[in-house]
Amino acid sequence: MTIPKKVRLVEVGPRDGLQNEKQPISVADKVRLVDDLSAAGLGYIEVGSFVSPKWVPQMAGSAEVFAGITYRPGVTYAALAPNMKGFEAALEAGVKEVAVFAAASEAFSQKNINCSIAESLERFVPLMDAARANGIRVRGYISCVLGCPYEGEVPAGQVAAIAAQLDAMGCYEVSLGDTIGTGTAGATRQLFEVVGARVPRERLAGHFHDTYGQAVANVHAGLLEGIAVFDSSVAGLGGCPYAKGATGNVATEDLLYLMNGMGIETGIDMDRLVDAGQRICAVLGKENGSRVARALLAKRSR
Amino acid sequence: MTIPKKVRLVEVGPRDGLQNEKQPISVADKVRLVDDLSAAGLGYIEVGSFVSPKWVPQMAGSAEVFAGITYRPGVTYAALAPNMKGFEAALEAGVKEVAVFAAASEAFSQKNINCSIAESLERFVPLMDAARANGIRVRGYISCVLGCPYEGEVPAGQVAAIAAQLDAMGCYEVSLGDTIGTGTAGATRQLFEVVGARVPRERLAGHFHDTYGQAVANVHAGLLEGIAVFDSSVAGLGGCPYAKGATGNVATEDLLYLMNGMGIETGIDMDRLVDAGQRICAVLGKENGSRVARALLAKRSR
Repeated sequence: MTIPKKVRLVEVGPRDGLQNEKQPISVADKVRLVDDLSAAGLGYIEVGSFVSPKWVPQMAGSAEVFAGITYRPGVTYAALAPNMKGFEAALEAGVKEVAVFAAASEAFSQKNINCSIAESLERFVPLMDAARANGIRVRGYISCVLGCPYEGEVPAGQVAAIAAQLDAMGCYEVSLGDTIGTGTAGATRQLFEVVGARVPRERLAGHFHDTYGQAVANVHAGLLEGIAVFDSSVAGLGGCPYAKGATGNVATEDLLYLMNGMGIETGIDMDRLVDAGQRICAVLGKENGSRVARALLAKRSR
Repeated sequence: MTIPKKVRLVEVGPRDGLQNEKQPISVADKVRLVDDLSAAGLGYIEVGSFVSPKWVPQMAGSAEVFAGITYRPGVTYAALAPNMKGFEAALEAGVKEVAVFAAASEAFSQKNINCSIAESLERFVPLMDAARANGIRVRGYISCVLGCPYEGEVPAGQVAAIAAQLDAMGCYEVSLGDTIGTGTAGATRQLFEVVGARVPRERLAGHFHDTYGQAVANVHAGLLEGIAVFDSSVAGLGGCPYAKGATGNVATEDLLYLMNGMGIETGIDMDRLVDAGQRICAVLGKENGSRVARALLAKRSR
């Protein structure tokens, strides 16, 4: 397996990140964040989520965000659409790419989306049909791929079976998410080996949380397995709902630092990325969660 | 190259960690920290440094710390001895193992210890002789192996030449230190390959700082190169003197989590280690720098 020469970093800060921050922020601040990220060279940004604001108040106004951003050529602006209703709202907002998600653990599926894994996949069928009819690309997420807060260990074979189903249903890429950040490098490699036997590796992505400080090592493990797409969140936006005070998404800056150090092309400008992260941290009134950002900012201020 | 089944974590918190914390702490607090660490199963603890308290006030009272700790069988308690004077003080304090350090960059050597690399190595000769005569083991450190704050890039061949000299002089192990934390996984593997061609890998160790969030990935890269000894600091004690506000030593808890996840034996008890880290953080009045500790403590408090 050769290490990829080019990697696509999927920026999930405006969605997965902000969704897990305490207070909702204004549409204008969200638009600014997305525009800052595209200006920094991110080629894929998950902008928002079409869910009920009753359940996820942080994601209210996603349609307004899509209406307000400056569309740069070549950049994909995606939205989470957990069901048909969300998909229709996304379509109405002019969204060209959506993401759906399933869990790798039955207990998590039940607690998180109130249905079994099989039921959640069935619900995607009309959504996938509608997406196809409207020329909308669909990315699939699987959560809890390296551990579940309720069940503990999750067999890699189970993840592979769900990934194969999402692939067969028409998801052009399946992102494997270590939702609680308990995975380590050995398990990560094994996961990509097992899932990679069912779904081609060029259609797989890794989504790692840094709760236990392992995310960068896990991304490196993914690179060693030939994986070339990784999700991350600018400034490490987003906490971990299963361990208050703990870290959530791996910071985009930290992954970019790894890629730059390994000579892997991403098209992203570090300085502009760090600026984007600092600006949103100021809006949220929180410390920057990226170690790279903190180190580079400390150097700037000397 | 096979991944080691057993790894030795060298705990440098009481020395490299505390030395880089702002305020000095009491001898009693240092003794408690060392005893907590040995109780947690750490088999190697760098207890203090025999340097002038004028230069490093945080290391004052190292002899008293050595006199106060409870010696557990099988545990190595080491001290940094930068010169003959320090070595004699260590000997008088009953220290059985010392560490010496050289830099891989000329500029760093000049600024840090006021002499060239060659001069610093020459100065070790009488110290190595005295150590041999007194049955004291000597561990060698090389700093700036993956980058220098003054010179930037440091060629791996230069590191290899210095490592070979320390090895030839009688250091039983040479620890390669990424002092400013700028190294990434690819460079780490290359470094161990190049140095490993001059010094057997079983006599090499890795010492990574997490300034740019890469340390756990670099340790994983080291494991892939067959390296089985890594330095770390409980609770991530110690900042980075070259970037204020940035992270320093990688946290022992975060490396232990990696080793446990990969089924690598260390003999260390995670819960007791986390307790030791929390206690010293309370003494210092600082937040715990280990992501693993923060996540586990958040789970405990639920």
